[in-house]
Amino acid sequence: MYNELKEVIAVRMVDLIEKKKQGQVHSDEEIKFIINGYCQDRIPDYQMSAWMMAVCFNGLNQEETFYLTDAMLHSGQIMDLSGIEGIKVDKHSTGGVGDKTSLVLGPMIAACGVKVAKMSGRGLGHTGGTLDKLESIPGFQVEMDQEHFIRQVNDIGLAIIGQSDQLVLADKKMYALRDVSATVDSIPLIASSIMSKKLASGCDTIFLDVKYGDGAFMKTKEDARRLAKTMITIGKAFHKDTRASLSNMNQPLGCAIGNSLEVIEAIDTLQGKGPKDLMELCLISGSHMLVQAKVVSSLEEGRALLMEKVRCKEALSKLKAMVAYQHGNVHLIDHPDQWIKAPYCIDIYPQMTGWCQDIKTKDLGTLVMKLGGGRQTKQDIIDPSVGIIVHKKVGDQCTQEEALCTVYASSLLEESMIDDIRQAWIMSTLPVMPILSVEEVLQ
Amino acid sequence: MYNELKEVIAVRMVDLIEKKKQGQVHSDEEIKFIINGYCQDRIPDYQMSAWMMAVCFNGLNQEETFYLTDAMLHSGQIMDLSGIEGIKVDKHSTGGVGDKTSLVLGPMIAACGVKVAKMSGRGLGHTGGTLDKLESIPGFQVEMDQEHFIRQVNDIGLAIIGQSDQLVLADKKMYALRDVSATVDSIPLIASSIMSKKLASGCDTIFLDVKYGDGAFMKTKEDARRLAKTMITIGKAFHKDTRASLSNMNQPLGCAIGNSLEVIEAIDTLQGKGPKDLMELCLISGSHMLVQAKVVSSLEEGRALLMEKVRCKEALSKLKAMVAYQHGNVHLIDHPDQWIKAPYCIDIYPQMTGWCQDIKTKDLGTLVMKLGGGRQTKQDIIDPSVGIIVHKKVGDQCTQEEALCTVYASSLLEESMIDDIRQAWIMSTLPVMPILSVEEVLQ
Repeated sequence: MYNELKEVIAVRMVDLIEKKKQGQVHSDEEIKFIINGYCQDRIPDYQMSAWMMAVCFNGLNQEETFYLTDAMLHSGQIMDLSGIEGIKVDKHSTGGVGDKTSLVLGPMIAACGVKVAKMSGRGLGHTGGTLDKLESIPGFQVEMDQEHFIRQVNDIGLAIIGQSDQLVLADKKMYALRDVSATVDSIPLIASSIMSKKLASGCDTIFLDVKYGDGAFMKTKEDARRLAKTMITIGKAFHKDTRASLSNMNQPLGCAIGNSLEVIEAIDTLQGKGPKDLMELCLISGSHMLVQAKVVSSLEEGRALLMEKVRCKEALSKLKAMVAYQHGNVHLIDHPDQWIKAPYCIDIYPQMTGWCQDIKTKDLGTLVMKLGGGRQTKQDIIDPSVGIIVHKKVGDQCTQEEALCTVYASSLLEESMIDDIRQAWIMSTLPVMPILSVEEVLQ
Repeated sequence: MYNELKEVIAVRMVDLIEKKKQGQVHSDEEIKFIINGYCQDRIPDYQMSAWMMAVCFNGLNQEETFYLTDAMLHSGQIMDLSGIEGIKVDKHSTGGVGDKTSLVLGPMIAACGVKVAKMSGRGLGHTGGTLDKLESIPGFQVEMDQEHFIRQVNDIGLAIIGQSDQLVLADKKMYALRDVSATVDSIPLIASSIMSKKLASGCDTIFLDVKYGDGAFMKTKEDARRLAKTMITIGKAFHKDTRASLSNMNQPLGCAIGNSLEVIEAIDTLQGKGPKDLMELCLISGSHMLVQAKVVSSLEEGRALLMEKVRCKEALSKLKAMVAYQHGNVHLIDHPDQWIKAPYCIDIYPQMTGWCQDIKTKDLGTLVMKLGGGRQTKQDIIDPSVGIIVHKKVGDQCTQEEALCTVYASSLLEESMIDDIRQAWIMSTLPVMPILSVEEVLQ
């Protein structure tokens, strides 16, 4: 009986793959059939991968992408955050090198009286993960049940925890398959993957930072714009105020790459001493989030409020309150000089003078992973102290007397590693314009 | 160790899927890596189906298709027919309804002194298979080892047996996957599947009958032409004289559909009393095959020789010799009236007068399968006596007094079945041109 049912499903799935291959449009019921069948192991991987490849070529229209997101959303648990008073804002970055935005922006927003109930992920490959960064604070706990999570957000306005395994079960299975079947870079598949998770996490408003350039999913600004628009359309269809910034990933965000180095940079930024591009990204996205939360009526007002919360150290206090609540060592937030340092500290100099034209950002992310600061496979253990502090960013003039970066390592570097790091800086003999961190915000 | 190797192969396969997705060209070594890896179970189905879907969209160029055929050919045994003296000709039809060509053409060619060492397949779904037709002759054996096969061909010039399971192992695995992943209708995949099997069967020349229209793989003449050209190019790259006819499948070939009915029609045709379209197809392809075998120097000479072999009954004698050699009941070849008939014999009349404009050929094939004359699944047992004799073909004038066809069935037909059969005939109120069986021959 079960086998017969399985055969009927397999035959129907062949027709649906053929339909998408021919560029036809799926109904809500067809998309549900595919996602539910796949989640329940009734549709095999080899049919799903063929369908996803057909989607890579022929796409999904707005309605299909909405149906897909909806089917994925309902494949797992949906968080109920109604126990948290007020508007809950959420932000999401599509993944970058040196992206510690959540550590800065979360406290800034919470200091403005808006609730930040955030679930984050871990890093894999060349990109870092917010959870790994937080765990470089000794004692910091990212696992928490829903009851404690809601209580913490009600108490101090801010919590960042690990994403529940029970959200969007379809995405876990589909993502693993996309990864091995070369079907990652499809805009509707990316958009439904991100948005189903954001919607499942139960917040009221969504701010997306869509990165493009070297090392991002989206290689061009045009693709990033298409992805952003697709996600905004999905968010609106679910009646969530959704906005998205397009930001350039052709250099790391801020200067620090590596877990504890990034937390220290986040602290510096909350003390008003951080890199300008990171602060600017936080002010732009933060002012939108405050408008979304309806605590200010204009972006200018939002920006002024955020700057004030940094100036008076209320934002920093929110970070400390969260660290204390989640059992981390608060002393280290007040004394960034007392963090455990990596034993080796190596300055890398350029081989020629000129202007920094481009930084191979993905390569830098991968190099930090190889230093021990990230995971090649899910099982790898991270060394929180290693990393790179970038001194020269795009547009900076470089001389042979000034280091491009400083590497923090657990052992001496091999010459080839030093060469690899140096070669991540592409130099020009002519002056180069610096890069804006956020190019525009769509809504 | 094995798992590590498997992981390395999986990672490389992702890159190759991505490459084909982006429309890039594979090297010989890459194609071998894919086919060998898949045959050895090192590349999983879900990567292979994604790759084949990318091939459906971006195709394979001439070189890639050659490499693919070559890799598939070497995935199994290659028949050595060097023990058979003279040029061995082979023919292949891409599959049709009522296609009993091999039963007529094989004896005609053998009667001209050319060696026919043919391996055939079974029917599945709406198309019949030569083996099933031959097995409707009581006692006929289609299983034979290579030694007996070669001896029979040397003795009488003709043998038709079941294809060895050991030929082109890659194709069995790939075909099963294509069938369930909606990746059947890709010209380079079809061409390499057919040609690897033809090349593995060891003959010297290849004649292909590429069918198009309702129920054929290729829906349009243009696609059939592309498939034919692709296969001719592959054949020539392997130094085999390869030619292909394009023939119209918008009506059954001949009049009989169903196993024993088709054998009887083949006998009639070898007695010079068969349907014109079937005889014409045999004369056109046969004259090309005689030129390929170098026993005649022109198509006209070939046609005259074939007609003479039918007239003097030498072709019919060859069929009888083969049936005798393969343990079939020869008496039935001389006495077609003595075959076991299906118990029910129902004439189907049209509901209006007019001209037959089109016959839903695939539907007719499927209806005969449902009568018990074909297989829905590989395990089904066939009733050789059931089938349909078509009386009205495209271009024929139809009146309500003349039956469209006669159905041979094992039980009375339900009214809905009769309706379904009747509706396979599309009628026109205006005169319609008849269809040529072969439209052209490419070489």
